[in-house]
Amino acid sequence: MFYHDKKLQYKVRVDKPNPLFAKMLQQAIGGIEGEIRVCMQYLFQAWNSRGPAKYRDMLLETGTEEISHIEMLSTAVALNLEGAAPAIQEDVASKNPLVQMILGGMDPRHYLSGGLGAMPADSNGVPFNGSWVVSSGNLAVDMRSNVMAESGGRLLAIRLFELTDDPGMRDMLSFLIARDTMHQQQWLAVLEEIGALRDTIPNTFPRDLENQDFNYKFVVTNINPEDSQAQGRWTQGQSLDGMGTFDREPARPYGQEPKLSDAPWQAHAQKAQTKDSDLK
Amino acid sequence: MFYHDKKLQYKVRVDKPNPLFAKMLQQAIGGIEGEIRVCMQYLFQAWNSRGPAKYRDMLLETGTEEISHIEMLSTAVALNLEGAAPAIQEDVASKNPLVQMILGGMDPRHYLSGGLGAMPADSNGVPFNGSWVVSSGNLAVDMRSNVMAESGGRLLAIRLFELTDDPGMRDMLSFLIARDTMHQQQWLAVLEEIGALRDTIPNTFPRDLENQDFNYKFVVTNINPEDSQAQGRWTQGQSLDGMGTFDREPARPYGQEPKLSDAPWQAHAQKAQTKDSDLK
Amino acid sequence: MFYHDKKLQYKVRVDKPNPLFAKMLQQAIGGIEGEIRVCMQYLFQAWNSRGPAKYRDMLLETGTEEISHIEMLSTAVALNLEGAAPAIQEDVASKNPLVQMILGGMDPRHYLSGGLGAMPADSNGVPFNGSWVVSSGNLAVDMRSNVMAESGGRLLAIRLFELTDDPGMRDMLSFLIARDTMHQQQWLAVLEEIGALRDTIPNTFPRDLENQDFNYKFVVTNINPEDSQAQGRWTQGQSLDGMGTFDREPARPYGQEPKLSDAPWQAHAQKAQTKDSDLK
Amino acid sequence: MFYHDKKLQYKVRVDKPNPLFAKMLQQAIGGIEGEIRVCMQYLFQAWNSRGPAKYRDMLLETGTEEISHIEMLSTAVALNLEGAAPAIQEDVASKNPLVQMILGGMDPRHYLSGGLGAMPADSNGVPFNGSWVVSSGNLAVDMRSNVMAESGGRLLAIRLFELTDDPGMRDMLSFLIARDTMHQQQWLAVLEEIGALRDTIPNTFPRDLENQDFNYKFVVTNINPEDSQAQGRWTQGQSLDGMGTFDREPARPYGQEPKLSDAPWQAHAQKAQTKDSDLK
Amino acid sequence: MFYHDKKLQYKVRVDKPNPLFAKMLQQAIGGIEGEIRVCMQYLFQAWNSRGPAKYRDMLLETGTEEISHIEMLSTAVALNLEGAAPAIQEDVASKNPLVQMILGGMDPRHYLSGGLGAMPADSNGVPFNGSWVVSSGNLAVDMRSNVMAESGGRLLAIRLFELTDDPGMRDMLSFLIARDTMHQQQWLAVLEEIGALRDTIPNTFPRDLENQDFNYKFVVTNINPEDSQAQGRWTQGQSLDGMGTFDREPARPYGQEPKLSDAPWQAHAQKAQTKDSDLK
Amino acid sequence: MFYHDKKLQYKVRVDKPNPLFAKMLQQAIGGIEGEIRVCMQYLFQAWNSRGPAKYRDMLLETGTEEISHIEMLSTAVALNLEGAAPAIQEDVASKNPLVQMILGGMDPRHYLSGGLGAMPADSNGVPFNGSWVVSSGNLAVDMRSNVMAESGGRLLAIRLFELTDDPGMRDMLSFLIARDTMHQQQWLAVLEEIGALRDTIPNTFPRDLENQDFNYKFVVTNINPEDSQAQGRWTQGQSLDGMGTFDREPARPYGQEPKLSDAPWQAHAQKAQTKDSDLK
Repeated sequence: MFYHDKKLQYKVRVDKPNPLFAKMLQQAIGGIEGEIRVCMQYLFQAWNSRGPAKYRDMLLETGTEEISHIEMLSTAVALNLEGAAPAIQEDVASKNPLVQMILGGMDPRHYLSGGLGAMPADSNGVPFNGSWVVSSGNLAVDMRSNVMAESGGRLLAIRLFELTDDPGMRDMLSFLIARDTMHQQQWLAVLEEIGALRDTIPNTFPRDLENQDFNYKFVVTNINPEDSQAQGRWTQGQSLDGMGTFDREPARPYGQEPKLSDAPWQAHAQKAQTKDSDLK
Repeated sequence: MFYHDKKLQYKVRVDKPNPLFAKMLQQAIGGIEGEIRVCMQYLFQAWNSRGPAKYRDMLLETGTEEISHIEMLSTAVALNLEGAAPAIQEDVASKNPLVQMILGGMDPRHYLSGGLGAMPADSNGVPFNGSWVVSSGNLAVDMRSNVMAESGGRLLAIRLFELTDDPGMRDMLSFLIARDTMHQQQWLAVLEEIGALRDTIPNTFPRDLENQDFNYKFVVTNINPEDSQAQGRWTQGQSLDGMGTFDREPARPYGQEPKLSDAPWQAHAQKAQTKDSDLK
Repeated sequence: MFYHDKKLQYKVRVDKPNPLFAKMLQQAIGGIEGEIRVCMQYLFQAWNSRGPAKYRDMLLETGTEEISHIEMLSTAVALNLEGAAPAIQEDVASKNPLVQMILGGMDPRHYLSGGLGAMPADSNGVPFNGSWVVSSGNLAVDMRSNVMAESGGRLLAIRLFELTDDPGMRDMLSFLIARDTMHQQQWLAVLEEIGALRDTIPNTFPRDLENQDFNYKFVVTNINPEDSQAQGRWTQGQSLDGMGTFDREPARPYGQEPKLSDAPWQAHAQKAQTKDSDLK
Repeated sequence: MFYHDKKLQYKVRVDKPNPLFAKMLQQAIGGIEGEIRVCMQYLFQAWNSRGPAKYRDMLLETGTEEISHIEMLSTAVALNLEGAAPAIQEDVASKNPLVQMILGGMDPRHYLSGGLGAMPADSNGVPFNGSWVVSSGNLAVDMRSNVMAESGGRLLAIRLFELTDDPGMRDMLSFLIARDTMHQQQWLAVLEEIGALRDTIPNTFPRDLENQDFNYKFVVTNINPEDSQAQGRWTQGQSLDGMGTFDREPARPYGQEPKLSDAPWQAHAQKAQTKDSDLK
Repeated sequence: MFYHDKKLQYKVRVDKPNPLFAKMLQQAIGGIEGEIRVCMQYLFQAWNSRGPAKYRDMLLETGTEEISHIEMLSTAVALNLEGAAPAIQEDVASKNPLVQMILGGMDPRHYLSGGLGAMPADSNGVPFNGSWVVSSGNLAVDMRSNVMAESGGRLLAIRLFELTDDPGMRDMLSFLIARDTMHQQQWLAVLEEIGALRDTIPNTFPRDLENQDFNYKFVVTNINPEDSQAQGRWTQGQSLDGMGTFDREPARPYGQEPKLSDAPWQAHAQKAQTKDSDLK
Repeated sequence: MFYHDKKLQYKVRVDKPNPLFAKMLQQAIGGIEGEIRVCMQYLFQAWNSRGPAKYRDMLLETGTEEISHIEMLSTAVALNLEGAAPAIQEDVASKNPLVQMILGGMDPRHYLSGGLGAMPADSNGVPFNGSWVVSSGNLAVDMRSNVMAESGGRLLAIRLFELTDDPGMRDMLSFLIARDTMHQQQWLAVLEEIGALRDTIPNTFPRDLENQDFNYKFVVTNINPEDSQAQGRWTQGQSLDGMGTFDREPARPYGQEPKLSDAPWQAHAQKAQTKDSDLK
């Protein structure tokens, strides 16, 4: 179960409110690279955990921390939106009331729907979508999903850092970037611990049931294979899982031209898609 | 630009059509773990590629291959749906015409919308969503997203394998599982090549701009920190990127209680959210 | 069944076309607070109505009125978009053709997809989503959903009013705000009539089947409960439904630590999530 | 900021695992009536709160409690899915491996994507959508949205209660139903405290700016107004806000037939939608 | 503006309630081929109409009729769901209460969310999505979208007809199929009237601005062009618009290999995607 | 299966990078009128094809070509985004760093999520949605869907052409417009070939099973039928399919007022929606 403290995990200060930056910050709240996604992802992974308690506990610890990050960013959005109030006030008095607000590129829903508050949506106003949350029942798959999420998240936080020169915002982002560093390293450390950093996962499917002719072969689909510069670590030498040797071959069909049966009459397929004979 | 061959990349054969398995296979076409997602992901990464040509070419090769996998799976769905035809035919003659079709758990849109064909949707009929496609402009982030996608994809293909005993379907899945092995290894190999397998990424943000007090510290949010079993590789020793030492501390607030300004009158915040004094 | 009149329910006049205000108005058409949502909500509630005919009729009356509101707002959008035409025309002649249109913050789809017409989408261009429509089969739940929808709708209409000084638009909004007043009062009146204004609903579940220890207790999840200022009408005195006395207690766990079984082998849970013993 | 306890807020016990009931429970996790929605709704309302601290604190207390409810329900889903394991195992050995699993109506993604775990999605597998979260910046609008959410939530929990005879599940639902009772009463108590239980909200818009001819008038859109049985508390007597008298009138147009300008040439409107003269 | 009649446009009778057929019917309400889509499409086209009044009027007439079709289908869903009541009642008394309901394949939300009522969603419970509504500002484009919608809608209605032997349902569908016949013919008639049945549209773009080398040429992307059987009316003879002659050529690149600039440092592209020189 | 060439199908050149035009171009990639939709639509139609091989081959040829168009447009987006780099660079140095970027109306995700690359989303950043893809199992329905898609697509490409004066972009669009001309004509040619250009489809449903009283009758839902100007080709003369004569009649109800049964107790419909007698 869960508790909270009225104080924030780290200080959130906005020196110069900027409704445009409020819009940008939404990406880190409700975007696919954002904190709601990692929060739900780690918590669902914890709640569905069927392995050793240490991993369940670890996921609960960090999933809970992420709620605090959503809180920090939402606070930052609300503080940045305070910059919109004077603009709206002046605009109403002006001849062309919407100009300032819109020219500024503010998310209209920040005012219309939120009354100057944060939303679970991305920087284009597209709502958070639960389909992004990965909880696969396989620890290694989950960890790789988490590494990916923190890598994208740290990249986003850094890009946000570049877009502001507000000292308060840069301080907050400096903290969030640091936490993304830790969390990237944390999930990588679990992968190392369970020996899955370089492995093919899941590791529980008998290798003799997978087609051995194609599992370490880079397929060149270029119509002029010789033109492809796609050569590197992945086309030669031992595979990273130590179970094969990388190879390379031009794409060619091993299957046949597919043949589906005629549609049954119940499908009402326009006289069975109009037989050739009907066209005479 | 793109070309095609009428033959399939690998043979697709269904020995005993099963509309229920057709529904399951949809997850591998239009689900978040599916082939449309990886296809678009690799192609967009290629088209947006601003680095060495070898990576662009590599992404184009594999992105193109994935189209062939969507094709194989769609063919497999259409072939499995041929099993639905007799059921529908008999049903119409029976007293309770829908029973057999629905009891069987078939996706109703496979018949109603598709006339016994595949759709870009998952196993619950939820449509493919472009938000899943990651193309970040950062090669390491992209590669980690690809590793994650292939890990989830291989897990899905293996679970599908467990759910069928149709020899044709198992043969096809055996090929797809092998390709997922290769692609997992391929993206890991790129990460090794660019030295990002264990690194904190992106690697271009000056470390002194990130908060050095929190970037290798595991935060225990458990209200009884001593109860947490969350200890392991990620709480001690050198970090995997070699740039810090893992540490551990109970969560505590470093920030203050947030204070937002009163809402401006234009927000119509119900008499500024009802002042305490108004309640007397 | 339904009929229409070519005239509008109330006059719609735009004195000074403004494509930016057209974008704002979209929130009142296709946003969650908008008219398509209430229109569908009242009509579905009517069509699903299994109670006295008076409520079904009432819902049909008002659901039908809402179609007229969508019509008024769509007309307002189309009229405001006429302001975009000169901009586009001039732009084409200018060196930097997109500047004026885009700087203005116009919704690009208003031109690209709609040719200067309204769309069933919100002010960010996110499409209307049928999931917002509540028709629960319980009259009191439906009425509360309707009260909520009209409350949010009136707030939105008022904020739109603040954003324009166009006399025609203010006149139209003045009418729509009035209708939202009536509809709020209307659904509240039904709640009063059926005695559900202050009640716990649904009122058909035997109270002895609900846990009597927790049904009037405010749970303080603050880690420092004494710091919480969350005291008021809801922490003391008789409950509004007259069936209990409000109380207050710090959160504590009444349950145990959950224990899930190991994953079955078919789940391919990475050697059952890697047993601790495997890590030695 | 946030903390957690490894124990659950209330006990979760499944006496007889039932993957079908796991699917039903998803509605209470990721459906529009579910716990993720109320959790996010109360937390965002708290974070965006610009009024007296007591309401912010109250929202934080209850928003935090809701995370514990998502946790309980997710645990219940995972426990119910343990019933699927034997089925899957037997199926693989059988001639028709999918029959048992699918006939049973299990959500295929519970196995394919989740490996027998819960997901942030509804009972049809449609993902949670952030658009459902209301945080309007107006306390009364927010409270009414919360009353609505808890009313729909309690109705759902009661329907789930009817669908199971598992004593453990009924005990858990008995607790959740009680909490929904409290939360319904809690938000109603706030509405009473701020005097908004029967009021027209927001209460900050000058009444003389709204059209006084239409704000207490029930409009009968029935083509045969005399046939409408829609009479009741809302068509006569003083309005609940005490500021008007309910009235009733047959619908009639107060506006004119709308006239849009011709499309500008840039819209490429098919020769201006083909003038009548062009058709001669 | 809009009015209604309490009677239905055509009779809706269910002889033998069937909750499974209720689920199927949802596709015709909230699916992409369904009535909500055409209703909104015709109404938005009318409201956005900038051409001759006759077309605006026509669209309003038919858009209004479609509301009556949504009403008929929703009524049919509610009537079919009455068959679920006995099942639920018996189930509760049985040992395994969910079996009958779920084995039957009923949409769980029909009971859990709707209390035995219709929803604006498709047969998989995926909500109606406003993005399907086409109102382009070009009459010919709109008409072709309408022809397409009615063609898919009639196909769906016919498939639903095949799935039931309930005389009441077949009678209702027989009416809806007839209306789809009329509406298909109606939109085709407009296309004929404005001379756009066989035309290339829009017809307002100067032909000399379009690339004359590629506008009547069928491109064969088959890697073995001679294997392609794709020959027919579209590869020879005069084009249907009379402005060109169909031709055929194997695909070949007319463009060059694309070259993007290096990423700017602000994009944090992992040391500009890792230069080749870094890899030595 | 599929292959690619590193060269583009047609040259893509941007003379003057413009991040605003990059945003506009997204509509042609991931919007409902865009290339991803037609690409998937033609390929799924091909893969599901149960008719003569010539149509399957034709769909494969053109579906494959469309991948090349997505590639061209994505390249165009990436090239146009190169214009954003200097803006971002200068902004960071300025006092108000976001101004230039946002005032310019750039899609924030083009930088934040994509690092200056294209995305499978529309011009408002709303992701591509698989629900748009029509593959119905009926050749005529599919062809009409394709005609509609190419008509909307050509209109969009022309509007994009009007919005730019960049010679490179106009050259690329001139090619794409030409291809849309061909593809419109191509699908129309198929319709002519199978005799479905003016037909009512599907043509496999016995006409005597459809209600003969309503299949060629234009229904006037105007409350004042005499006011309706909706007269034209569709209200008189022989229908285009030659199987009926157009007619016209004012709307009137042929059905009765619907009557649903009372809700069963399990639906918890608030004391059966509160009987009138309960209100006394």
